[in-house]
Amino acid sequence: MKVLLFDTFGTLVDWRTSLMATLTNFGRKKERQLPAADIVDRWRMAYEPMMNRVRMGKLPWTDLDTLHRLALTEMLPDFQLSDLTPPEIDELTFAWHQLSPWPDSVAGLTRLKRKFILAPLSNGNFSLLVDLAKFSGLPWDAILGADLFKHYKPDPETYLGACELFKTAPAEVVLVAAHNYDLKAAQDFGLRTAFVARPTEYGPRQQKDFGPEGSWDFVAHNMIELAGLLGC
Amino acid sequence: MKVLLFDTFGTLVDWRTSLMATLTNFGRKKERQLPAADIVDRWRMAYEPMMNRVRMGKLPWTDLDTLHRLALTEMLPDFQLSDLTPPEIDELTFAWHQLSPWPDSVAGLTRLKRKFILAPLSNGNFSLLVDLAKFSGLPWDAILGADLFKHYKPDPETYLGACELFKTAPAEVVLVAAHNYDLKAAQDFGLRTAFVARPTEYGPRQQKDFGPEGSWDFVAHNMIELAGLLGC
Repeated sequence: MKVLLFDTFGTLVDWRTSLMATLTNFGRKKERQLPAADIVDRWRMAYEPMMNRVRMGKLPWTDLDTLHRLALTEMLPDFQLSDLTPPEIDELTFAWHQLSPWPDSVAGLTRLKRKFILAPLSNGNFSLLVDLAKFSGLPWDAILGADLFKHYKPDPETYLGACELFKTAPAEVVLVAAHNYDLKAAQDFGLRTAFVARPTEYGPRQQKDFGPEGSWDFVAHNMIELAGLLGC
Repeated sequence: MKVLLFDTFGTLVDWRTSLMATLTNFGRKKERQLPAADIVDRWRMAYEPMMNRVRMGKLPWTDLDTLHRLALTEMLPDFQLSDLTPPEIDELTFAWHQLSPWPDSVAGLTRLKRKFILAPLSNGNFSLLVDLAKFSGLPWDAILGADLFKHYKPDPETYLGACELFKTAPAEVVLVAAHNYDLKAAQDFGLRTAFVARPTEYGPRQQKDFGPEGSWDFVAHNMIELAGLLGC
C-alpha cells in the first residue's frame, strides 16, 4: 500500500456543525433567527440530485462550488430568504471552504503521512479542497478534486483517474471513507478500503453509515486508530 | 496575490548534483568509472527536444518519467552502457524523483506558505512531483504536474490551466522561476513573475539565467529573500 485517498466531507470535516454556526452568525448579523439545522440539512440533501443532473447530462460539467450556490439559491424562497444579495449568497457558499475537522483528523493524518502518500478524493473542486486544507490544517501531499476528472464519485473515472495520476495499481491504493456506498465503488474498481464511522455527521437525523456494511479491509473508529492499524 | 507557482527543476532542487551522485554510486556498484557530469548534462540536454516531439505531435502525450527513460536509453551506447538492464534503467530514471533541494528552498517555502497557496508548476508529472516533495520536504499545498494539462511549459495551457484550477485570475498568481523563458511566457499570459537566480544549476557549463532578463515583478537571490520581499 502506497497511497491513501480520503473522502473529505463527513469523513474528515464536520460540515454540518460548521455550516450551522455560519448560518447562525449570518442570521445574527441580519437580525433574523434562521432555522440553521433545517437549512443545512436541506442544502446537503440537494447534493446528490444536483450531481445527478451533471451525471445524466442535464447540466454540462459543473463544479461543486457552483452546484452548492445553485442549490442554495433554489431553496432560499422556502426559508423566506429571497432577499439575499448575490454577495451574501457567495459568502454562504464559501462557508464550504472553511469547515472544521473532526478532532482526530489532523493528528491521524499527520501520523499516516509518515508512511503513505495522502490525498483527498472528494467531490469537492480542487480550489475548495485547497482552501479547506489551509483552513483546517489537513496535511495533504497532493489535492485531487472532482474537476480534475470532470466526474463525480462514484463514477469509475474518479477512483481510477486517481490511481493513474499516482501511477499506482488500484490494489496499492486505499480509499478511506465514512460512507459505505463510496467504499463499495472503490472496492468494485480494485482499490482497498477503510471504513471510519462518523455517527454524528448528519446530526440527530442520521439514518445510515453507523457501521461497516461490506467486507472492508480496515475498520476504525477514528483516524488515529486507523494510523495504528496501518502501522504508523 | 493569492497563489505562488514554482518551477521546480533548477529553481527548487539541484538536479545536477543529485543525479551526478546517483550515477557515481551506480558506477561504483557496477565497478565502473562513469563520466557522471557528462552523462547528466547530456541527459538534461535531451529534455527540450524530447518535449518538442510531444509538442509537435511526433509523440502522443508522454509524461516526463517516460521521456527521461527514453532519452537515457537512446544515449546509453555513447557511454558504453548498452548492457544496462531494464530494471537498472528504471532505477536511474527514478533518481529524478529523489533530488535534493537547494539549501534555502524548504525554509523559504515554509515561510511563504503562511500567507500564500503554494504549488509546483513543473514539466514533471504529478507522481514524480509528489515523490520529490516527500523526499525533499517541499511543503506544497497542492501538486500541479504537466500530466494534468497534457501540455508542457511554455504552452499557455499550463499557466492558464493552473489559474483555472485555483479559480484565481492570472494577475493574482505569481510564477517563481530561475529561468527567464518561463517567466516571459507566464508574463505574456498575465501572471506575475518572480526571478530567483540559480547560477550553479548547470555547473561550470551554465551559460544563461545568471540574472533577470525581463521586467519581472520580484527578483531575489533565494527563497528566503523572496519570502521577505513578499512580506512573509
